[in-house]
Amino acid sequence: MLLDITEFVAKSIGRWRSQRSAHHLTFGHFEAVESEIEIVSLSTDDPAVIDLCKSHNIDPGLVVSPFRVSWDGQSDWNEDEVLKGSNVLAPVPDPDQARRGKLLRDQGYAETMAAAGDYTITEDGTFVLVTGYDRAAAEEKIWFVNPNVRCRVSLIKTSAVSGVVTASFSSEIRQGVKSEQ
Amino acid sequence: MLLDITEFVAKSIGRWRSQRSAHHLTFGHFEAVESEIEIVSLSTDDPAVIDLCKSHNIDPGLVVSPFRVSWDGQSDWNEDEVLKGSNVLAPVPDPDQARRGKLLRDQGYAETMAAAGDYTITEDGTFVLVTGYDRAAAEEKIWFVNPNVRCRVSLIKTSAVSGVVTASFSSEIRQGVKSEQ
Repeated sequence: MLLDITEFVAKSIGRWRSQRSAHHLTFGHFEAVESEIEIVSLSTDDPAVIDLCKSHNIDPGLVVSPFRVSWDGQSDWNEDEVLKGSNVLAPVPDPDQARRGKLLRDQGYAETMAAAGDYTITEDGTFVLVTGYDRAAAEEKIWFVNPNVRCRVSLIKTSAVSGVVTASFSSEIRQGVKSEQ
Repeated sequence: MLLDITEFVAKSIGRWRSQRSAHHLTFGHFEAVESEIEIVSLSTDDPAVIDLCKSHNIDPGLVVSPFRVSWDGQSDWNEDEVLKGSNVLAPVPDPDQARRGKLLRDQGYAETMAAAGDYTITEDGTFVLVTGYDRAAAEEKIWFVNPNVRCRVSLIKTSAVSGVVTASFSSEIRQGVKSEQ
């Protein structure tokens, strides 16, 4: 189970059908989102990867297994709104620790600035990403239940106190493979 | 973060407000459950603990930090149905490995037989419980985001294939403490 980032990204490549539930903890509200997610691998000399490295002042030679995530979904909060976007992500492993590093990300559609998070892959194969923003922090855990089922828990925390504002959970099923479920 | 089972149970004692989302993966269905959960510590010579050990043929002297979980909730699938019950649980740590062991459980209201699961507490403080049943297996992960917020992911897998039938996520907020959320 001792995955490195290359193996983790390789397992993630593909098309996924995602069910996401967001718990807005302050109000006890539930939100349900259904989406299609596509994860494709990029080459390290892809212009989008080079640009991403430039915006973070990182040598592109340090990047391994960059990838693009695209999503297309719908929330039960507003069925007319289509949640659609894509993001380029580039892992930069720590030279001394195979299971730690930085994850660079371009701004995508939802965020106003490029962000870099710190990742760790735990002994049981969970990818943990912590990203600090001006006034909040995001913590994400992603793990594989089997090669065709991925779980993801995202927490948005406020920076002022130890409070959690939103906790969301996605279950993701690989598409395009024969499933006996 | 290297928790043993005694510390993990101690952090869990109290009253919690839980939001749970269940994803029924075969049909892509979402279920929302709201409940109150109470976790109280029991003494190792509590008759309920002694009975539980008897039913599992385990020496009660091996049990540490037994506890009772009670819940009272409501699902959006059937608002007339009250989900209510309680369960006695007794950890039996592995004498050689402080972060592993068995978790004994009585049948509660929902299950037809007593069950014992295998737990591990990972390096990042996640309690992982795997319970095998006749035709299925349950895998549960529980971790603390902070002392007053607990997350729990439960997966029901069929034993025949590596398929996941239900994935559910609970976010649990401690009650009776001042919260700044």
